[in-house]
Parts: sequence; C-alpha cells; structure tokens
Amino acid sequence: MNTIQSQFVEKVLLGGKSLQKAEGSAFAPSNIALCKYWGKRDAGLNLPINSSLSISLGELGTHTKIRLREREDVVCLNGVQQADESGFVQRIKAFLDLFRPVLGSAFFEVRTQNNISTAAGLASSASGFAALVLALDNMAGWGLDRKQLSMLARLGSGSASRSVYEGFVQWNAGQLSDGTDSFAERLEIEWPELRVGIVEVSADQKPVGSRDGMNRTVATSELYKSWPDQARADLLSIRSAIEQLDFTLLGKTAERNALAMHATMLSAWPPLLYLQPDSVEQIHKVQRTRADGLEVYLTIDAGPNIKLLFLAENECEVCGAFPGIRVIRPFPQL
Amino acid sequence: MNTIQSQFVEKVLLGGKSLQKAEGSAFAPSNIALCKYWGKRDAGLNLPINSSLSISLGELGTHTKIRLREREDVVCLNGVQQADESGFVQRIKAFLDLFRPVLGSAFFEVRTQNNISTAAGLASSASGFAALVLALDNMAGWGLDRKQLSMLARLGSGSASRSVYEGFVQWNAGQLSDGTDSFAERLEIEWPELRVGIVEVSADQKPVGSRDGMNRTVATSELYKSWPDQARADLLSIRSAIEQLDFTLLGKTAERNALAMHATMLSAWPPLLYLQPDSVEQIHKVQRTRADGLEVYLTIDAGPNIKLLFLAENECEVCGAFPGIRVIRPFPQL
Repeated sequence: MNTIQSQFVEKVLLGGKSLQKAEGSAFAPSNIALCKYWGKRDAGLNLPINSSLSISLGELGTHTKIRLREREDVVCLNGVQQADESGFVQRIKAFLDLFRPVLGSAFFEVRTQNNISTAAGLASSASGFAALVLALDNMAGWGLDRKQLSMLARLGSGSASRSVYEGFVQWNAGQLSDGTDSFAERLEIEWPELRVGIVEVSADQKPVGSRDGMNRTVATSELYKSWPDQARADLLSIRSAIEQLDFTLLGKTAERNALAMHATMLSAWPPLLYLQPDSVEQIHKVQRTRADGLEVYLTIDAGPNIKLLFLAENECEVCGAFPGIRVIRPFPQL
Repeated sequence: MNTIQSQFVEKVLLGGKSLQKAEGSAFAPSNIALCKYWGKRDAGLNLPINSSLSISLGELGTHTKIRLREREDVVCLNGVQQADESGFVQRIKAFLDLFRPVLGSAFFEVRTQNNISTAAGLASSASGFAALVLALDNMAGWGLDRKQLSMLARLGSGSASRSVYEGFVQWNAGQLSDGTDSFAERLEIEWPELRVGIVEVSADQKPVGSRDGMNRTVATSELYKSWPDQARADLLSIRSAIEQLDFTLLGKTAERNALAMHATMLSAWPPLLYLQPDSVEQIHKVQRTRADGLEVYLTIDAGPNIKLLFLAENECEVCGAFPGIRVIRPFPQL
C-alpha cells in the first residue's frame, strides 16, 4: 500500500465518520481540458506542475455502484467482470487500498458503467475515479465537500480531480508539498451555447499511457521547460474568455494549448507522437475550415482523437463539415 | 534594392576584382541539416539565432550557368524559362541586384538544373543559391574563399551558406551585427558508411514557406524560447558523434532535433503543421522498425518528407522496410 497516499486520505477524512450504508452509488462526468494538465511535481500525491481548466461533459461520464464484500474484490466494467490481473482492476484495487482501513472492511464490489465508448478518447479514468470517490462518500456517509472529494479523486487520476464538478472547472496546482492546496473548483459561469464535437480517430489503446507520457516528457524534453509559462498564460486567457463569453479567445487559446502540449511530447525522447495519420488530416481540415470562415477550434488529449469546439449557431455547418461527429452540450439548454 | 545586403556584398568582395569572363558555371550540393537552422536574429542579413550542422548530398544538387546579357534577366529552371512574375524568378533577381553594381552589368541569363526533384523535399534553395554564388565567382574571377562564398550564399537562403561545401558542414551563427562572423565551415571528417534515405511523402508545394514559418514560430511560440538551448546541446552532441563515428548518438540527436523543431512550429499561432498523414505514418514506422532492432533514425525539414539516416551495413534491410526510398551516399565510397 502507498503510505504517503493513505496518510493523505486520513488527513482529508479527518479520522472518518462511521459507516452509514453497505452500498453507495454516484455519477461523475467526463471532462475535457481546455488548458491541459501535463507534468507532475509530485508523483506520490499526484500533484501537478501547472494548474489546468476543463469543461465537464454533462451527462456523459461514469455511473458507479460500490458495496462491501466479505471476500475478494470484484470489479465490473459495463456489465462485464474484469480479470483480476488486468491493469484496470489493479489500478482500482490499489486505490481502494487507501480506504480499506478507514472503512473497516477488507473488500468491495465495484460496478462501473461508462456511457461513452472509451474509444472516443474521453478520459474515462477521470470520470471513473471521480465516480468511485463520490460512490465511496455516498456509501460511507462522510459528507465530504467538493474540495475534499476533488483531492481524493486526484489520487486516482490527476484529471479526476476536475470530474467531481459540472461546468467549467479549474484545478489549482497548489504549492504545498502535502497536497492539501491542490484541488479543483467550479467556475460559476454557464455558457449554454458552447458545443464540443468528438471526432473519433482511433479505437486502439494508446501505446504509452498519459502517466508514462508526461513523466517521459518532463524528464527528457528541453522544450517542456517553457511549458509552465505557456500553461500559466493560457489559463489566464481561458478564464478571461469564459468570463467575457469570448469564444474566439477561448477556442484559439484551447487549441494552441493542446498543440503546445503535443509539441512537448514530440520533443521528448523517445519521441511521443500520439497523433495518427487521421489526426493530422483532421487538424489540417480544422485549419482549412476556419480559413473558409467557419469558426471551429480543436483540442486533443494524450491520444489520437480530436475534439472540436464551436458555438450552437454553427452546429449545423460544423456537422456538415465533419460528418459523424458526436456533439456534446456541456450545459443544460435554455 | 536591399541596401544593407548590397553593402554587405561590397564588404565581402572588398571592392571586387575586374571581370574575367562573360560566363561562369558551378555545382553546389543539396544539404540536410542534422541540427536545424530555425529562427533569425537578423532578417536583413539572414543571421541565424542558432548554429546548425548539415551533411551535403554528394552529387545531388544544382548545376548553374550564368552569363551576361544586355537586356532583361532570363531565368531557366531545368530547361524551362520561368515567368518573370514567379516567386522563383523574383527571388533570384533580387539576389542578382546585389551584384549588378560590382559586375558593371545590368542583366544576366541564369540556367539552373536540379538533379533531384524538388518534390523530394530537399532544400533546392540551399543548393540553388550556393550554385549561383559559385557561378558568379567563377564568371567574375573574384577568387573568393569558401568563407566568403558561404556568407554571400547566406544572403540568398540561410541554409545555402552550408551548400558551398561537401561533407559535414557547420554554420556558425556568429555574434556580430554586421554578419561577418556568420558563415559555414567544413568538418574535416569523412564517414563513408553513412547513408541518407529519402521517403517521398508529398509533391505539393508547402502552404507556408520556411522563411515565413520560422518567423511566425519565433514571434508566437512560447516553447521556441527553449529552442536555442536545445540546438546548442544538440550541435555539441552531433559534433561529438561525428568525431567518434558514433552512429547511435548521431541518429538519436538528429531525430530529436528535427522533432523539436517541428514541436516549436506546432506551438506557433496559427499552428504550423508541415507533417501530412503519410509523414505521421512514416514516423510511427521508423519507431516500430527501430523497436524491432533495425537501427534507423529520421530527420524532417520544414516540409512533409522524411529523411532516414542509417549505415551501409543495414542498407538492404532498410530498403526492404521502406520500399521506394532513394538512397544517398554523401561520401565517396572506399
């Protein structure tokens, strides 16, 4: 068990309350970072080098049910029990290890359901760990606030710290070495006209996971040295864009931030090129489409899939230009 | 006419000698940078921010003949007279403007022949301007040394400063504002086993020229701030690799340098993505091939084409893995 992490869990729970129910359930949305999290300052506590900002994807995400068991953990994903030796189960069990002492129970059954295909490149670990923490809280009756839930989810996956909220979410990197100032907060601004379009490029599993990818980048890329400054400036621009509902500034900054993140990967050794031939075709297409006067921007996570950003007024035209995209409305409609 | 440049030409020529012949001819090789030139510290005199290092491509390059005319310039490329309003002719005429006062003649006929298709993505402006300067020197009988020729070629195209030599060539960025310490020198080391393989990806003209591309990158990319340090370190590694005939170090450093250059472009705004879908496919293929144990590295200039680096002992295997590549032997065979 990870001692540093379990001490952190105890600190957040402040000794913990007594167990309320034998089971709990929760939903957490997927999120797409407009200013990316890329690089850790502390691997043990999953503390980031830079603050990040995301948009949660409304009803798209993960539903998770958890309940106590007397013998051995069981983990089901989308209705199918997962092999104990799979990376997926190993990661969840390591995370549950942190809560076993507090909950006074040795084993759990976890049933988790993603309502968006993992192939779409939406960070399922973000909504997955957020939903798991919310379900644990629901079962245990801890009554944790969002800040505490965000910090616990962070231990499972950095970007999960943002998936405990709807809407625009900022994860503050924090400065403390004990990790207690590194949590996400919601920006109280709604933007119902905002649209996200998923262009599915590849259903293949990534050859290098994001965690290994960012570690390799930080360790070997000279250009990464300029990334924290870039991320800081981009975060300020995106906040300003959201406050003023300035879509051009939002889109432009999100696109350049994502491409700069991919640039740091490309300059790592061995080089990290998550983009596939189809990704490059779509990037060129977005540039051409924009040059033709249709305002659409893109963002890309550590994978091959492209996510488009556009406004409701251009939804028909964007769907025409990019057939087969899945359109997401992150905010409830007016 | 560009006054700063013509003053520089007069300085290099030291008043010039008298005209010897009515025509001159010369050949200059293409070159591929192993440590890239990317970014100018002075646009007027074509002075680079970082030093660079290239390998000349032996017999591949440009043959140029020049002779005096009484009326209007004529420029032929590969046997075809080029339209006066073409960018190609405009650039050559602007360059010739710098030499008209010294040569006491108003007009020239320039016949230039590239023995490698421009579609292969080999910088034809490098061998082109180098050959033009060598032909001018041949015609005028100036008897300039290579350092002077390199500085004059530099005014036409930065990378042309390296194409006045065979073999490994280092272009020293220099520090002086008058440009007189910014010229290329040959490294007196031969490496007959070295091979370059051209993977032709696209015959299309680049949407953004290298000159505009580097200016946009320097002006808008935050990550570019780390490029000079990267280039400095890479140059030292590549020199060391050449001195020790350490192919692994050479290949690895050249590949990471090229990808870092593309990374700075990707983080520019608007983003510069010279890579095409096929380029990405080839980059992944090089990584897979290397993972399978065949030692091959790549470099990419500001365009979509991929150049492979490998040793003679692996030539058959590399040609098998990359059918259709054009293999170049930069050094005379033993």
